[in-house]
Amino acid sequence: MQTTATMTGHPLEMVLDHIDAHRDTYRDELFELLRIPSVSAQPNHAPDIRRAAEFVRANLEATGVAVQLVETAGHPLVYGEWLGAPGQPTLLIYGHYDVQPPDPLDQWLSPPFEPTLRDGNIYCRGATDDKGQMFTHLKAVDAWMKSVGKLPINVKFLIEGEEEVGGANLERYVAENTAKLACDYAVISDTSQYAPGLPALTYGLRGLAYFELRVRGPRQDLHSGIYGGAITNPANALVQMLAGLRDDQGRITIPGFYDDVRPLEDWERAEYAQLPFDENAFRDAIGVPSLAGEAGYTTTERRWARPTFDINGLFGGYQLPGPKTIIPAEAGAKFSFRLVPDQDPEAITPRLRARLAELAPPGVVWELLVHSGGKACRVDPRTPGFQAASRAIERAFGIKPVLIREGGSIPVVGLIKDHLKVDTLLMGWGQNDDNLHSPNEKFALADFERGIRASACLLAELATS
Amino acid sequence: MQTTATMTGHPLEMVLDHIDAHRDTYRDELFELLRIPSVSAQPNHAPDIRRAAEFVRANLEATGVAVQLVETAGHPLVYGEWLGAPGQPTLLIYGHYDVQPPDPLDQWLSPPFEPTLRDGNIYCRGATDDKGQMFTHLKAVDAWMKSVGKLPINVKFLIEGEEEVGGANLERYVAENTAKLACDYAVISDTSQYAPGLPALTYGLRGLAYFELRVRGPRQDLHSGIYGGAITNPANALVQMLAGLRDDQGRITIPGFYDDVRPLEDWERAEYAQLPFDENAFRDAIGVPSLAGEAGYTTTERRWARPTFDINGLFGGYQLPGPKTIIPAEAGAKFSFRLVPDQDPEAITPRLRARLAELAPPGVVWELLVHSGGKACRVDPRTPGFQAASRAIERAFGIKPVLIREGGSIPVVGLIKDHLKVDTLLMGWGQNDDNLHSPNEKFALADFERGIRASACLLAELATS
Repeated sequence: MQTTATMTGHPLEMVLDHIDAHRDTYRDELFELLRIPSVSAQPNHAPDIRRAAEFVRANLEATGVAVQLVETAGHPLVYGEWLGAPGQPTLLIYGHYDVQPPDPLDQWLSPPFEPTLRDGNIYCRGATDDKGQMFTHLKAVDAWMKSVGKLPINVKFLIEGEEEVGGANLERYVAENTAKLACDYAVISDTSQYAPGLPALTYGLRGLAYFELRVRGPRQDLHSGIYGGAITNPANALVQMLAGLRDDQGRITIPGFYDDVRPLEDWERAEYAQLPFDENAFRDAIGVPSLAGEAGYTTTERRWARPTFDINGLFGGYQLPGPKTIIPAEAGAKFSFRLVPDQDPEAITPRLRARLAELAPPGVVWELLVHSGGKACRVDPRTPGFQAASRAIERAFGIKPVLIREGGSIPVVGLIKDHLKVDTLLMGWGQNDDNLHSPNEKFALADFERGIRASACLLAELATS
Repeated sequence: MQTTATMTGHPLEMVLDHIDAHRDTYRDELFELLRIPSVSAQPNHAPDIRRAAEFVRANLEATGVAVQLVETAGHPLVYGEWLGAPGQPTLLIYGHYDVQPPDPLDQWLSPPFEPTLRDGNIYCRGATDDKGQMFTHLKAVDAWMKSVGKLPINVKFLIEGEEEVGGANLERYVAENTAKLACDYAVISDTSQYAPGLPALTYGLRGLAYFELRVRGPRQDLHSGIYGGAITNPANALVQMLAGLRDDQGRITIPGFYDDVRPLEDWERAEYAQLPFDENAFRDAIGVPSLAGEAGYTTTERRWARPTFDINGLFGGYQLPGPKTIIPAEAGAKFSFRLVPDQDPEAITPRLRARLAELAPPGVVWELLVHSGGKACRVDPRTPGFQAASRAIERAFGIKPVLIREGGSIPVVGLIKDHLKVDTLLMGWGQNDDNLHSPNEKFALADFERGIRASACLLAELATS
């Protein structure tokens, strides 16, 4: 395939010049968005969610794209489209304006919702996940429109506010609007480069199945001396049930859990083995005494291509200073499985429920809440769209991207595949140490700017000659 | 042995009349003490602890007993003595003015530190444990002094403020003041009657060994997608370690844990079997679907005479609404073992530590904190002191008390035995459903008043003829 960059050389140069000239404006606009604490998991932030949606709507509209705020049963969607390039392909750009909760607050070095520049990085909740990355596409479109006056291809935007809570409203909207959303390519920037100076194209993601288990015993907390031994302690029952989900080899004991796991292919293992990776530096950066995981797999394989069981939160009984001799009335845990192709989160739930029923001791009542889920994905890197994306990154970053998977989950990729029959280009501008979902989330300002340039190049690369 | 009640008949009648005449005053004084939120586990309540100690000091002094506030490295002790009965035995009266934390606050029907009368019960944190019960002895002494002008025996008071946190300062004080505290009998009212209308004398208590386990992994919370599978999740490690402390039969797997457990004697099992006990009513009162416990033992035996392992609190990671996909940096648990004669809490700690070392997976760092401990006790109910206590209860309650053990722990009983070589009379005025350590703690006003009368009778019964 011939690169189209040469053909659109002059307009693209104008666009890239425009981006250079407006870097301060683009950064200030991002900071304004970052200051809105749009935490989708916490109901008290609902007004902030709406402010963030309105900000995105207005900012996108100012580029010349037709935009609407779409009300849902939950947080609003922002939909935009510019269809002024008949005969050219259509690109669907997905992103999300909601963010993870900022806690634990005491570990932030600067306020979580006050974007702060340190050492070339923007520190803020949402800086990289996903406000900063999503915003690169808005600014790329803005630069095309303001400098060239039009885009080389057709573009649709779909920016949601429930990504971090796995809301069902996006799926409903996509399912009900497949004609409106029809596209030839989709792109999401919500992943990372392989390392600083080593940009990547991501061809696979893990899926997710997230649950909450609540175990209830006595009507209220009881004195552990008076009642201890005569009833099942719900906190003991909880740890017994959770621990029972893995065997002493660390394998998940849910019957059928591994049935649909597609083994790593030889070329993938070879490809990963060639990537620079310093186990000791990785361990030290995390601060753990040693790495540990499933036998028979490298650290990279464990992170990208093997399923997991992680407890995300534990609670119950007395948590304040000092001892308190109670049997708690209730204990609970939030926990999740990262899934790999071709595991189906829908199939995990009944199997998990059956396994928990086996593990639950008598004398307690338990309840399993299903929080969210999403399929894993794995796409073919040899398609023309991927090749175009690769060239766009190479142009903006000055180096050809490596081919990787990532361990995180972006359920919308599966949703776009299911409903719009399109594979998604995962073009991530972040870094692995960006602390997304953690205190001190960051995004390199230079990566923000390179991301805008790469997105601008992508529009050119996808145009048919 | 001859009852001495007849000999002191006339003075005791005067005392009991005085108690009847001053019931409202005594109740109001108790309410004043109950309003002080003397929560020993929480540092912000230190001023309340001191206020409670000062209240007890002043109230006891007003009876005519010589009192001093004894400063310790922690919360102050109240020591009082009246030694005006030469040739008569000396009774040491122990109690505590500190209380358990009141949480969970939202389950209280009236404010936890506002004593509220409902259906003949005083509802308040500390109503029965131990302010209300302890106070009966102050008021019995008051009634003797105000009506007869003296006591029939010598009395020493030792009222502490660290019972609920297992503070070491009481033991240090007792060990350093064995001559000052020398006595012939000790009495504690910090236990329960067997049932309403069925007062009891308690001849055995369980001990306690209370720990906190903290498991640390990464330096900070991490994204479970990016890192999941490559490191040990400290919350997973915690539940694995805790669950591993019991086998699938529910037996504690700490090597040697059961070595020093003295088997129940036949007469004890026969005695317990004769006590009225409605399993279904007990289950329904607690609100559990079924009772459960160690195979081969009745519910009463499990509660009174078998060791336990109970998790008292669990914490770590994300506990707020909604999902959050993190690997927590740390997770922890508070947990405790109820011990039975002749288990030694000191011996449990190193054995537990060794077992946890076996159970801990690689990749995490863990720390075991020792919160508090106390030996179990079991005393001979055929001694003269017990017989006197039995008669005192029979006189005040109108029925002979039954002989029971209790499942709770009163470490001071072992301490009095070790340092003062005296067995303790456990004369409890509470009821099993008094919700001590739980929301809506209560104490029947009638039991408070009967307790004062029984204590007044005990002083008479212990006097030598």
